[in-house]
Amino acid sequence: MGVVGTSYHMTPDEFRRWGREAVDWIARYMERVEELPVLSQVAPGQVRAGLPPRPPERGEPFDAVLRDLDDVLLPGITHWQSPSFFAYFPANASGPAMLAELLSAGLGVQGMLWSTSPACTELETHVMDWLVDLLALPERFRSTGEGGGVIQDSASSAALCALVAARERATGGQTNRTGVDRPLAVYATSQTHSAVEKAVRIAGLGSSAVRIVDVDGAYAMRPDDLARRIDVDRAAGAVPCLAVATIGTTSSNAMDPVRAIGEVCARQGVWLHVDGAMSGTAAVCPELRFVNDGLELADSYCFNPHKWMFVNFDCSAFFVADRAALVGAMTILPEFLRNAATESGAVIDYRDWQVPLGRRFRALKLWATIRHYGAEGLRHHVREHVRLAAEFADWVRADERFVLAAPAPLNLVCFRHVGGDAVNQRILDRLNRSGRLFLTHTRLDGRLVLRMSIGATRTERRHVEAAWAAIREAAGPPD
Amino acid sequence: MGVVGTSYHMTPDEFRRWGREAVDWIARYMERVEELPVLSQVAPGQVRAGLPPRPPERGEPFDAVLRDLDDVLLPGITHWQSPSFFAYFPANASGPAMLAELLSAGLGVQGMLWSTSPACTELETHVMDWLVDLLALPERFRSTGEGGGVIQDSASSAALCALVAARERATGGQTNRTGVDRPLAVYATSQTHSAVEKAVRIAGLGSSAVRIVDVDGAYAMRPDDLARRIDVDRAAGAVPCLAVATIGTTSSNAMDPVRAIGEVCARQGVWLHVDGAMSGTAAVCPELRFVNDGLELADSYCFNPHKWMFVNFDCSAFFVADRAALVGAMTILPEFLRNAATESGAVIDYRDWQVPLGRRFRALKLWATIRHYGAEGLRHHVREHVRLAAEFADWVRADERFVLAAPAPLNLVCFRHVGGDAVNQRILDRLNRSGRLFLTHTRLDGRLVLRMSIGATRTERRHVEAAWAAIREAAGPPD
Repeated sequence: MGVVGTSYHMTPDEFRRWGREAVDWIARYMERVEELPVLSQVAPGQVRAGLPPRPPERGEPFDAVLRDLDDVLLPGITHWQSPSFFAYFPANASGPAMLAELLSAGLGVQGMLWSTSPACTELETHVMDWLVDLLALPERFRSTGEGGGVIQDSASSAALCALVAARERATGGQTNRTGVDRPLAVYATSQTHSAVEKAVRIAGLGSSAVRIVDVDGAYAMRPDDLARRIDVDRAAGAVPCLAVATIGTTSSNAMDPVRAIGEVCARQGVWLHVDGAMSGTAAVCPELRFVNDGLELADSYCFNPHKWMFVNFDCSAFFVADRAALVGAMTILPEFLRNAATESGAVIDYRDWQVPLGRRFRALKLWATIRHYGAEGLRHHVREHVRLAAEFADWVRADERFVLAAPAPLNLVCFRHVGGDAVNQRILDRLNRSGRLFLTHTRLDGRLVLRMSIGATRTERRHVEAAWAAIREAAGPPD
Repeated sequence: MGVVGTSYHMTPDEFRRWGREAVDWIARYMERVEELPVLSQVAPGQVRAGLPPRPPERGEPFDAVLRDLDDVLLPGITHWQSPSFFAYFPANASGPAMLAELLSAGLGVQGMLWSTSPACTELETHVMDWLVDLLALPERFRSTGEGGGVIQDSASSAALCALVAARERATGGQTNRTGVDRPLAVYATSQTHSAVEKAVRIAGLGSSAVRIVDVDGAYAMRPDDLARRIDVDRAAGAVPCLAVATIGTTSSNAMDPVRAIGEVCARQGVWLHVDGAMSGTAAVCPELRFVNDGLELADSYCFNPHKWMFVNFDCSAFFVADRAALVGAMTILPEFLRNAATESGAVIDYRDWQVPLGRRFRALKLWATIRHYGAEGLRHHVREHVRLAAEFADWVRADERFVLAAPAPLNLVCFRHVGGDAVNQRILDRLNRSGRLFLTHTRLDGRLVLRMSIGATRTERRHVEAAWAAIREAAGPPD
């Protein structure tokens, strides 16, 4: 409780003591997470029922928090760090990232302006440039030219920023002054992440501004249909504003043809944003750099180190080719933020690259993670995930009860039992109730499809094998 | 580096070792931050120059990160945790919050849906209800009725969410479907945080939608002028949509009369959002609950535990009276997020309460902080900051070279030297260059004003005394 004289603060020595306990709690969690049921089985309200209805009048020692973490909260945790977590997308954390998050909390700086903590801004710019090296991204995204990178909380927020910048460019700087006054058009596909429609709504364009461009048989955007729709919109007096291409859709890991899309966008003066939220990390491996093809035609790009690059959430890497377009759309300078460094123009103020004003020192965890693993370590683990997915896909192909439901170019395998939706739903429910693994679903061509997403930090071959065995078992005996 | 066999991950035992080092680094930082120059004195580019230009091919041990943190980064840090940090607003962190941030990183769960980790959602709902108790907020903000609270990253994002919800209500659910098609009006004052204009722009209304309502002599919104402007807008065919009242403006801690404003808004059907980002925390003390006056008339309310309640950034508490209005405006449900719990309607999915999809387990740090301090401890420290500010204001009043520039109802004292802007600028520059303390400025009635913001975790009377001595010294000898 730290009540020393009239202070209730935790003293540095108490912090040492409880800090060691917290670190040890996490180390033990790493050791035992494999044994815990992956998907929480609590009923709605169960966790709350274990908590006191009112806040305490008197402080409590930190071990009370640790005890309740075990007793009350843990049953309500779905273990995203379990090696048998194959649902949604990976959110793979790592030791160095966690410790850097702690250091960031300890420093407690605000990085809204360069001047409010120069190291917070400069390390961020620096590691974002490192990512350009690490992933062999186009040079135009490097801060040393006209572009640059910034850490956002999520790909959703990055998409919103891209839209706001694109809108300003498409309307000649008018929208920020007087609002949306012409119909604007945004191009996506049925497979694009819902974050884009959410951004379109927030930005006041209305869902009707979203044009659903046709996809091909592999769920990838058809550039010819994109071009056609842009022409139709222009002819009708709408302003084509933004196209969003996806490198690895959430649903099925479909790869939109960024190069062909980028050529259409360049011809038409439409801002191209590329969403590589999960799959972008694949580019750490030279042999997987097909994910970068055409990226030099993008105006903005986003991928999430907090998905597949061992940095705990939140750390979404957002790059723009023309930082002036982004900053111009987002900046407002009130008196209380004025300072000599900003006015010199020699520094970056990241508040102008994002929706919120305040920002944590998130670069620390990206930096610590890259330094811990090195390019070599990141390549090794990403490659291993891709190899495991390919092996899993082979097992699916070899079992006549199952079929692949989409191409599996990286670490996500979409498959289904041939018995139809009811059978697949039953398999899913059995598996997830078992606690042995956690899978989620999607729909492709109207059919229920199971998604096997491989990318948790400690997933090894034995976990994928066990998952496949459990899936076969849940499907019942072969006919 | 953790290279064991073919794994590059940090093992649990390595995590124990480096975790202890990281904890000890922070404990030492707490012990010595008082001696460090508060405002970083580095030149632009200086931090980057100390970092290797390319990412490492091979991993490095974690102590390399800790070493560079000291050698390269620390000179570039502006110490928001220094007891002599009196700039901007407090961002007061605490031991329990930091450790809970670490635990959150270790669990690494995604709280986008209830089902993706029920404890993450339920603890958040629960501690937000605790805040209703702790601050004696209106019952309508409690989750057990029609309202509820959510943790946002910042008051900026909360303002954007309030605007989107207000817009949907004002346009009968039209904007999300077909975009902004009528002129909308948002009411604020010259003292309202720039986040509101930023939100208005992002939302596609354009800055011209912002009506600057007159303020009185204490920089507080005039409700009669608000009423007049709403009438004018309606008569002109505009749709009055949102009014933002501030409890403690950033610039001078002005208190808008929320009750009178709320009565105007209720009469006119305008959504009232109240921004109590820093000052809202004052309500932990019963004698300071004037900050809550009229809050039962607000449709939404935001205050930041990450400013003055010892929770490290980010933790902004956002409450709505009608959660259906917020969720209705923000929700989009793609197939891959469908699940039985969501469809039962029995749970909260916080992704629909915010801009991003993903979310960290931020409730942990709010919970740990409240439990550590208890209501008693929070009251004690907030009360102490307010007492120190009152004492400082007395010192200003007693020195004929200085005058108070605005009322100082809580922990922010705005004052100036009577010698004019140049003198005040010189005082500010001298102080901030000295490294002994860090102050920032604003402009009130066109005049440069110094802001003394008291609220860092470890600020004691001796730090405020030393600051006042330094200010008097920087002003030069009395005439």
